[in-house]
Amino acid sequence: MSSINVVKIGGKVIDDESKLDQFLNDFIKIDGKKILVHGGGKIASDVALKLGIETKMIDGRRITDSNMLDVVTMVYGGLVNKQIVAKLQGFGCNAIGLSGADLNLIKSKKRSSEPVDFGFVGDIESVDAVLLNSLLNEGITPVIAPLTHDGKGQLLNTNADNIAGFIATELAREFDVQLDLCFDLEGVMNGENLITEMNLLLYRHLEGNGIIKEGMIPKLDLGFKALNAGAKKVRIVGYEWINESDKGTRLVK
Amino acid sequence: MSSINVVKIGGKVIDDESKLDQFLNDFIKIDGKKILVHGGGKIASDVALKLGIETKMIDGRRITDSNMLDVVTMVYGGLVNKQIVAKLQGFGCNAIGLSGADLNLIKSKKRSSEPVDFGFVGDIESVDAVLLNSLLNEGITPVIAPLTHDGKGQLLNTNADNIAGFIATELAREFDVQLDLCFDLEGVMNGENLITEMNLLLYRHLEGNGIIKEGMIPKLDLGFKALNAGAKKVRIVGYEWINESDKGTRLVK
Repeated sequence: MSSINVVKIGGKVIDDESKLDQFLNDFIKIDGKKILVHGGGKIASDVALKLGIETKMIDGRRITDSNMLDVVTMVYGGLVNKQIVAKLQGFGCNAIGLSGADLNLIKSKKRSSEPVDFGFVGDIESVDAVLLNSLLNEGITPVIAPLTHDGKGQLLNTNADNIAGFIATELAREFDVQLDLCFDLEGVMNGENLITEMNLLLYRHLEGNGIIKEGMIPKLDLGFKALNAGAKKVRIVGYEWINESDKGTRLVK
Repeated sequence: MSSINVVKIGGKVIDDESKLDQFLNDFIKIDGKKILVHGGGKIASDVALKLGIETKMIDGRRITDSNMLDVVTMVYGGLVNKQIVAKLQGFGCNAIGLSGADLNLIKSKKRSSEPVDFGFVGDIESVDAVLLNSLLNEGITPVIAPLTHDGKGQLLNTNADNIAGFIATELAREFDVQLDLCFDLEGVMNGENLITEMNLLLYRHLEGNGIIKEGMIPKLDLGFKALNAGAKKVRIVGYEWINESDKGTRLVK
């Protein structure tokens, strides 16, 4: 089977241009087919603040009202996505920036307003894996912004981890998929110690202890989902180590 | 020869959602291959103002410093482009939003800082017509934001008329190209009267009289350039009339 790397970045690596350059330099060294999914870092909140739009969060998740949707469309779909694409092109990597609306790549459904109204937030329904594959076969590297659409003209804010996980899950049916969910830490931590391997049993144990909590829970859930769907390798890993195969926390069955 | 419509929009049609919806409804009725190039309307200036970034203009042209480049990347590449793409998808048109950096579609050169330093503004060097053609052949409708890149990692702000004109000129070698440069008026006006046909002699005459001036001059220059390169039909026309072939100002040899 042909292999595909799906790499998700977010957080500080997006907010800091020199870190982003270093990461992209590492990213292009990945041999063969690769897909980059990015979040928006702190920039969206910063821009919203400057525009006088209040950032509302519930349980660490952004409420996307109409004004905030405009902000994330600007920041994720425009600023971050196009800067990454231009930089990758500068490094000789033939990148294309895509939202879920482009070519109808990712369709989602506006999340129900009950019990919590998150606003214009989309839960993914489908990813066009055939399209991704045909782009990859032409040597193109998709750079995917965390925006999807409902197919009826409405853009929807969509979590970048979820997009990366969904893509990895879809592609795992036909490819050797490696999914790297990158973030600012070395991997999943137990206090100051990196957990190098994690299976579902250990995850449930550490979740029960309160050692694994908040944003890490959905990340691990979708990581295990991709693993169970057949992804060959799934890691939660610092963005500095995408080319070092023994780093980070590897999810195992 | 196969035919391609290249349509450029800017101004009020972008600032007003109901006008934009109406326009896009007309646009999708164009039979066959079509490309939409959009400007940014007033939104970029409005966003810049709210962000406390001063909009500097010289001779009606925006100075693009580093902060303003971020704004136009957000507004043109993100907000406007992705909203248009999502709307077109909602209307059943398989659109893809592209900047010049995506797939290395449009390479440009940063304009010399002499005699006037316009900042991060790009003058187009090349358009990948083969790529556009292969997208069109797959039934895809490119929606192009007025952003290009230098191939070394730098995005550059680039006039949407110029992009549309350059694309029409390139494609005219192999296709029956119709170029519609749409704007807020009926066409080129002589006082209150629409000029229905314009050749180069009339243009020079009216320019000499001061009847044609300012922003209309580069628009007509690139329209005639496309015509001379073989474009079959070039119009300066109100965005309401793209499907009415006898409207607007038609450029003739």
